[in-house]
Amino acid sequence: MTKKLIAEFVGTLWLVLGGCGSAVLAASIPELNAGIGYVGVSLAFGLTVLTMVYTIGNVSGCHLNPAISIGLWIAGRFQRNEVIPYIISQVLGGLAGASILYLIASGQPSFEIGGFAANGYGIHSPNQYDIFSVLTTELIMTFIFMLIILGATHESAPKGFAGIAIGLGLTLIHLISIPVSNTSVNPARSTSQAIFVGGWAIEQLWLFWLAPIAGAIMAGLFYDFLSSETVVES
Amino acid sequence: MTKKLIAEFVGTLWLVLGGCGSAVLAASIPELNAGIGYVGVSLAFGLTVLTMVYTIGNVSGCHLNPAISIGLWIAGRFQRNEVIPYIISQVLGGLAGASILYLIASGQPSFEIGGFAANGYGIHSPNQYDIFSVLTTELIMTFIFMLIILGATHESAPKGFAGIAIGLGLTLIHLISIPVSNTSVNPARSTSQAIFVGGWAIEQLWLFWLAPIAGAIMAGLFYDFLSSETVVES
Amino acid sequence: MTKKLIAEFVGTLWLVLGGCGSAVLAASIPELNAGIGYVGVSLAFGLTVLTMVYTIGNVSGCHLNPAISIGLWIAGRFQRNEVIPYIISQVLGGLAGASILYLIASGQPSFEIGGFAANGYGIHSPNQYDIFSVLTTELIMTFIFMLIILGATHESAPKGFAGIAIGLGLTLIHLISIPVSNTSVNPARSTSQAIFVGGWAIEQLWLFWLAPIAGAIMAGLFYDFLSSETVVES
Amino acid sequence: MTKKLIAEFVGTLWLVLGGCGSAVLAASIPELNAGIGYVGVSLAFGLTVLTMVYTIGNVSGCHLNPAISIGLWIAGRFQRNEVIPYIISQVLGGLAGASILYLIASGQPSFEIGGFAANGYGIHSPNQYDIFSVLTTELIMTFIFMLIILGATHESAPKGFAGIAIGLGLTLIHLISIPVSNTSVNPARSTSQAIFVGGWAIEQLWLFWLAPIAGAIMAGLFYDFLSSETVVES
Repeated sequence: MTKKLIAEFVGTLWLVLGGCGSAVLAASIPELNAGIGYVGVSLAFGLTVLTMVYTIGNVSGCHLNPAISIGLWIAGRFQRNEVIPYIISQVLGGLAGASILYLIASGQPSFEIGGFAANGYGIHSPNQYDIFSVLTTELIMTFIFMLIILGATHESAPKGFAGIAIGLGLTLIHLISIPVSNTSVNPARSTSQAIFVGGWAIEQLWLFWLAPIAGAIMAGLFYDFLSSETVVES
Repeated sequence: MTKKLIAEFVGTLWLVLGGCGSAVLAASIPELNAGIGYVGVSLAFGLTVLTMVYTIGNVSGCHLNPAISIGLWIAGRFQRNEVIPYIISQVLGGLAGASILYLIASGQPSFEIGGFAANGYGIHSPNQYDIFSVLTTELIMTFIFMLIILGATHESAPKGFAGIAIGLGLTLIHLISIPVSNTSVNPARSTSQAIFVGGWAIEQLWLFWLAPIAGAIMAGLFYDFLSSETVVES
Repeated sequence: MTKKLIAEFVGTLWLVLGGCGSAVLAASIPELNAGIGYVGVSLAFGLTVLTMVYTIGNVSGCHLNPAISIGLWIAGRFQRNEVIPYIISQVLGGLAGASILYLIASGQPSFEIGGFAANGYGIHSPNQYDIFSVLTTELIMTFIFMLIILGATHESAPKGFAGIAIGLGLTLIHLISIPVSNTSVNPARSTSQAIFVGGWAIEQLWLFWLAPIAGAIMAGLFYDFLSSETVVES
Repeated sequence: MTKKLIAEFVGTLWLVLGGCGSAVLAASIPELNAGIGYVGVSLAFGLTVLTMVYTIGNVSGCHLNPAISIGLWIAGRFQRNEVIPYIISQVLGGLAGASILYLIASGQPSFEIGGFAANGYGIHSPNQYDIFSVLTTELIMTFIFMLIILGATHESAPKGFAGIAIGLGLTLIHLISIPVSNTSVNPARSTSQAIFVGGWAIEQLWLFWLAPIAGAIMAGLFYDFLSSETVVES
């Protein structure tokens, strides 16, 4: 159990350091007329998960996300008594990743924390989307993300490809929804940034716990129905 | 059968929400001097299919496209009596995806539907390509897309890689042809957008049923010839 | 044999239509302030090969390139009496791809052929590289490309991954060398464009046959040495 | 042994020619208003490793990096008496790659070596990050890179996917850290550039040996603990 929790800690640290880090450090550098843009940040988030699936997948299952742990439990793929410890490890790992990112970022002379890579709605949405749009987006994006995870790790799916499907699935979700909510689908990722930003980011944090978890639960129930009694060839 | 149709519905919903959604929500945001551009939209379309192949591939086969269902039937890989139900599910799924996208997009203060992500020719082609160029492009792009699908899912192809080849094949098709036709190769995707745009998009919709289906049929016949009696090692 | 030649024809058609097509139709569209840029074109070239490996790999071996057919022969992986027929099919397929591309492109009101996607050196290099740099670049890029092909299709390499390694290898080669030579590493691709451009492109075409073939031959000889007597675990 | 060393030489040559080459030749070309940017350079570095894993992985193990050879030795996956010969081959291969790159680049009329693709801190960091940020970044990026390598090549990981996870892991590391240190995580890569740049690049080179090696050693020790006694299903 301890090793699983350490793996989740390190994996979520990497998700935040790599994903939010690419956004904070590299998305746009006007002084250099350079930057990786939304495409680069989308790739980075997805690749944090892709790489960790192949690194710690057979230690902890590589959830890295409280909503995913809950959805897997609902779908009968994860034990109830591990849900809370996993979530704690993920939140702490995310905070560790954000702390390292803050340390690195503050070594740049003109650094200001601004919004860090926090998620938000209304005037804190990157492109001013209202709360209803952000809620809908986070709900359905996590719903589909959870479906991809359940499908790609199903015993009937081709072996080994889950990391590619899940990682690039997260890239896809970012390609769609960065302008809407800065893309969360992961309460640990949102929390790690909100704590450094404070104020509005903390006030809006509830949505980035509620919507992803609701979406993941719905997917857990739905996939159960979809995959039952389906004739499957390995 | 019901589960297959639900899978096609959800999968096509995701193709439209993810692919057209990335175009509508994220392709270009002048206010933020940001956007994912044609490369990001191309990646997004391809990744909707890549992710769904690993998620519902062994439920419904993951067609997500009326032209593909017809082409698979012509090639002897899909049962005739399932073609119409699949197409209906795909069109309805596409409409559901477009509806969710409309809901989300309209939560942005300055949103106007404009051309949504509709396909068009002549003055409605992104870069003003005439009807002949658009017809040729959609025909040959779907022809090759169908060949990739038939080849990558052939029993002699390496197991598990079909989702990568097919998904990234759709990315490639978008990299080539967004400026020409906004890229369809999928009547359900075109219909989903045309219904929201109305007017010219409805008037031009026939081409985005005709050309993809014709291309897919030609590929179904051609691949049959190409793969027959070929000596194959597994 | 006929089917193999048809497969090489179609595959090289796709390489030119997809790769050169993405460059001509989509690389840069100033009117729309949009375009896929060098990254998009690099991805497109690589994905034409990746998709075809999974589509026709077990029909013809998916060479799509005279230099590769010659290098495989030198390395003892391809029969001598098939080299010339393969090369003829590849050149004809490339011409067919270029013809379709010309047809499509000329349906855009302001289309002018300019340099199409031809390869060149000196003042015809995209960024003015001299003949020595272009020769060196084409030689070594094809040398490494051929090594990747020989290594990734070796019996000791993991099964099924060759299409990913080879396709993304071609993407990488374009990321490096588009500014130098517009990237050939493939005489059939260069010929297909030179015939439409005429003049200087024909005069410089010799280099884009000589350097890739020389690089591929060197790789064929080198890999033979490198892989002999290596202890290998499957 | 000789063949392994030749493989490491060629592989590291390719890492430097492809990765640093994409940066020097193609990252930004103001005259053409074009360039592959940080995203293209990140992809290029990752794809050099991805392609080489499938090409020489079963000859030499495809380390291409002194820090990785040391980390593998610490983790008990590489023999002590091979460490020094491997490192020498990698450094020489990197120098050969840099030499070819210099030859090619100097055939462009307005070429000046400037910083080549050297790594640096303080005023030589692309975006002016101080020494502490650069040290932290290189240490933790190599730590995670080494973990990915150890995890993805572990006997319990899915076979064949290591090249994808490791190569795209290096892409991810570049997406995050090019603005900070120009991204090293590889002393051979840093040395190859510093020798051509001289002066400050040589003076700062110690950091790009120290931090990657320290990070790799920490990962070797950590992974050993993490993977021991873990119940693993193949």
